[in-house]
Amino acid sequence: MSRWRPDARERLERAALELFAEQGFAATTVPQITERAGLTTRTFFRHYADKREVLFAGEAELPAMARRMIADAPPSADPLTLITGALRAVADTRFEGRRADLLRRREIVRSDPGLGERELRKRAVICEAVTAACRERGFPAMTAALLAETSATLLFVALQAWLDQDGDRPLHEFLDEALTSLRSTLSVTGAVPH
Amino acid sequence: MSRWRPDARERLERAALELFAEQGFAATTVPQITERAGLTTRTFFRHYADKREVLFAGEAELPAMARRMIADAPPSADPLTLITGALRAVADTRFEGRRADLLRRREIVRSDPGLGERELRKRAVICEAVTAACRERGFPAMTAALLAETSATLLFVALQAWLDQDGDRPLHEFLDEALTSLRSTLSVTGAVPH
Repeated sequence: MSRWRPDARERLERAALELFAEQGFAATTVPQITERAGLTTRTFFRHYADKREVLFAGEAELPAMARRMIADAPPSADPLTLITGALRAVADTRFEGRRADLLRRREIVRSDPGLGERELRKRAVICEAVTAACRERGFPAMTAALLAETSATLLFVALQAWLDQDGDRPLHEFLDEALTSLRSTLSVTGAVPH
Repeated sequence: MSRWRPDARERLERAALELFAEQGFAATTVPQITERAGLTTRTFFRHYADKREVLFAGEAELPAMARRMIADAPPSADPLTLITGALRAVADTRFEGRRADLLRRREIVRSDPGLGERELRKRAVICEAVTAACRERGFPAMTAALLAETSATLLFVALQAWLDQDGDRPLHEFLDEALTSLRSTLSVTGAVPH
């Protein structure tokens, strides 16, 4: 029953990323992916609706994960503690250690406008979940939306810098740097200029 | 030569918005739009590639407009002054006075996933232009990206609140409120929590 091996998803993902990088997303077929992974197309379609979804694996669980993290934070947590804690957890559990794969993935997503729109939709869906979770904690609507959007911005900007670096610094350092930079940018003047 | 009347675009846009709202985006045809506007389909296609683009009219000029505003700001302008000035200008020239149409437009965009993705792409394209313009002013890459993304967040969040309001307050008041709320949220604790 090798098709049920728990690493099937990982092998399919790795094979797909390799082939997308080698010959392009459009030119790659599902049978090529399963051949490279040493698995059947039936196994592929048990895990993914199509080849595009390999690039967005695990995404379905993200909104629920974000909601849970926000709901489970201590009642006393202020908004800043809330988002930095959640971002740190996401960085350490979902991104750290996967830099080579994520670099390859970014190249592929950038190569295809349809994949780029799909990526933007993913971000919007997560933002909506975070906004809803912040509303449930009692934050006003505008604060909730700002927290969600700003969390997405910090993660997005930190991810790009982490992927672009020459060295090997962990993602959470770039998150700290992004937050420090944003806070400093927004504090430059005392009053709100008009 | 009535087809060259300068208000042709405006009439087509108004007719399209009305029809999309009345009978749905998918069910509306270009001949229906031109009939309602009292213009020919030839005139329509001189202004728009298809019915979807009516909803994104004027978008092509936005990246250049954003770049110009940032490039033309006084050399001494700090980042916060830069973005608040640009957002205020955008609010007053492109949104204020159009609330009824923009409410209708938002309903239509929300009704169709394809339109939603198109809207997200519009935002991403403008963010890229603002990031590039901030880089040209000499801001570091991370600061430039944070400024662009945060400007988009402030505008997006303020726009939603402005559209949702019961009263008749101007958009720039919601922009001020969003900025004040974001600054306060990010200042709650002195140190960056881990």
